[in-house]
Amino acid sequence: MDKTSSSPTAVETLTNLVADDLKAVNEAIVERMQSPVALIPQLAGHLIAAGGKRLRPMLTLASAQLLDYQGSKHIGLAACVEFIHTATLLHDDVVDESDLRRGQDSANAIWGNKPSVLVGDFLFSRSFELMVKADSLKVMEILSHASSVIAEGEVLQLITANDADATEEAYLEVIQAKTAQLFAAACHVGGLVAGATDAQEEALQSYGNNLGIAFQLIDDALDYSAKQAELGKAVGDDFRDGKMTLPVILAVARGDDEEKAFWKRTQEEQEFKDGDLEHALGLLNKHNTLEDTVLRARQYGEKAISDLDIFPDSAAKEALKGIVQFCIERAY
Amino acid sequence: MDKTSSSPTAVETLTNLVADDLKAVNEAIVERMQSPVALIPQLAGHLIAAGGKRLRPMLTLASAQLLDYQGSKHIGLAACVEFIHTATLLHDDVVDESDLRRGQDSANAIWGNKPSVLVGDFLFSRSFELMVKADSLKVMEILSHASSVIAEGEVLQLITANDADATEEAYLEVIQAKTAQLFAAACHVGGLVAGATDAQEEALQSYGNNLGIAFQLIDDALDYSAKQAELGKAVGDDFRDGKMTLPVILAVARGDDEEKAFWKRTQEEQEFKDGDLEHALGLLNKHNTLEDTVLRARQYGEKAISDLDIFPDSAAKEALKGIVQFCIERAY
Repeated sequence: MDKTSSSPTAVETLTNLVADDLKAVNEAIVERMQSPVALIPQLAGHLIAAGGKRLRPMLTLASAQLLDYQGSKHIGLAACVEFIHTATLLHDDVVDESDLRRGQDSANAIWGNKPSVLVGDFLFSRSFELMVKADSLKVMEILSHASSVIAEGEVLQLITANDADATEEAYLEVIQAKTAQLFAAACHVGGLVAGATDAQEEALQSYGNNLGIAFQLIDDALDYSAKQAELGKAVGDDFRDGKMTLPVILAVARGDDEEKAFWKRTQEEQEFKDGDLEHALGLLNKHNTLEDTVLRARQYGEKAISDLDIFPDSAAKEALKGIVQFCIERAY
Repeated sequence: MDKTSSSPTAVETLTNLVADDLKAVNEAIVERMQSPVALIPQLAGHLIAAGGKRLRPMLTLASAQLLDYQGSKHIGLAACVEFIHTATLLHDDVVDESDLRRGQDSANAIWGNKPSVLVGDFLFSRSFELMVKADSLKVMEILSHASSVIAEGEVLQLITANDADATEEAYLEVIQAKTAQLFAAACHVGGLVAGATDAQEEALQSYGNNLGIAFQLIDDALDYSAKQAELGKAVGDDFRDGKMTLPVILAVARGDDEEKAFWKRTQEEQEFKDGDLEHALGLLNKHNTLEDTVLRARQYGEKAISDLDIFPDSAAKEALKGIVQFCIERAY
């Protein structure tokens, strides 16, 4: 991986590159989350204003810019992508019973599960209204399909949770569906409205996919890492939920009988004792599974970067490469 | 209202009229709810197979037939409408914590809230995939907008619940959004693919809207009626949830101070004693609010029937008129 393109400010570089477009996206987001039912913009605004990096919509913008797009259809699509993401987060937090999101109380913690479910539905619906406006059958197919696949991935994750025998293969299927699909669609539709060739479409989709997998691998490593607290999330959530992510799957595979019994008790039977999280961290450390998870992320990141090879050099291409580095380096 | 068109078998008449198309719709529904994630078709199938009358998709089919449509786009749209409806039911049952749906255990009672939320999302997404296939921008706008309005209505209903001072106006706004909008969209898109004129589009939309309001008024009257048990739902659910529907809103308005205090205690403060439901039924009876709710439904039903005046006489027109009668007469 080309270390010289690595930068601690890769998100800022990307943000600056697409600054004008991103302003328009933020305006579209605020406009489209309005409703005469005041609770809707309140609840949606809580989550949307809490920030997040706008990583997915920026991918749409940068992908369009990579092809020197001069139109404005990418704005609504970027907002659409963020709405799909936000709706998913709202429902995720309900399903995971999370109290914290982006360093703040989660919407379900403040307003309860009911409004979170329904406002999530509203944002999903709004995302579809936004994609219709792009007036491109292919764009609508890509985004509506991504939305289905995400839901499938979330259900699959629910099923594989609390199964200490969950396989790496099932895990990869989950993160491909719940995370990478939207990254891929975000890049793909940005290129599509900008008139990408078939090969360019494929490259953008593959870039988004590989980036998304790398992103989620790091996310799952971070859940067991001290750095996690800095990201405004609780540490060890996945452990307590029995969500079988790669660091644990590798530790189970490499563990002896006693260790396997520990994972079975905690992840499958959800029986916890004091000190279990510390013991789990010790086992991940013993078997180097956090490092191996990051290594895996690095490999996907390298693929993402090489997916961009077919595009001529540009500021957008550099920014998209930088984002890969950023996604991986937030592990450190 | 033309009593001669009334028939105890209006649903059967409609079902027979659209039988071939409905078979195709059911096949599309089964096909589109498939997923490699087995829990999805299991859970969705539980609800979809449990029956329901397929009232909304049949409205799409009959509206197309009213205009002598010979194509096949109405099939996917009818399936789309049923998917939106099913997704809404799944999330409704989570929000209402209902244990019973269509005379069976609800999906959330069997599988829990989490899969119900996520499978609902999957069905929403699938509905969007289905509407994209119609390849008509206007169809997509109508259905995606209906979907947003439904979610808005559900949030509004949540807000007006447990407010003993809820107004008839707010109630009508809720049922217009959460119920009538989809009835209207179902009819509208059926006519649209069949090449309806502007006036015909407007008439179908108005018919669906008035029918939907009548349908929901009756539904809300039934919630307090002995007939309810026959429909496979629990009696008095709305009372226990403090859902402010017209029978209660009218009873509060017509009640004396003691009665108002009763409604405030039960509906707003959610404090219940033995015999409260019976007392509530007594008050509805005293003030004739169930009859008045049915009367209101009748008025909307009459409007729905007159909306069909601009269409030449046909079997489809008679069937659509019959459905209005059916929706109202299930109150008896």
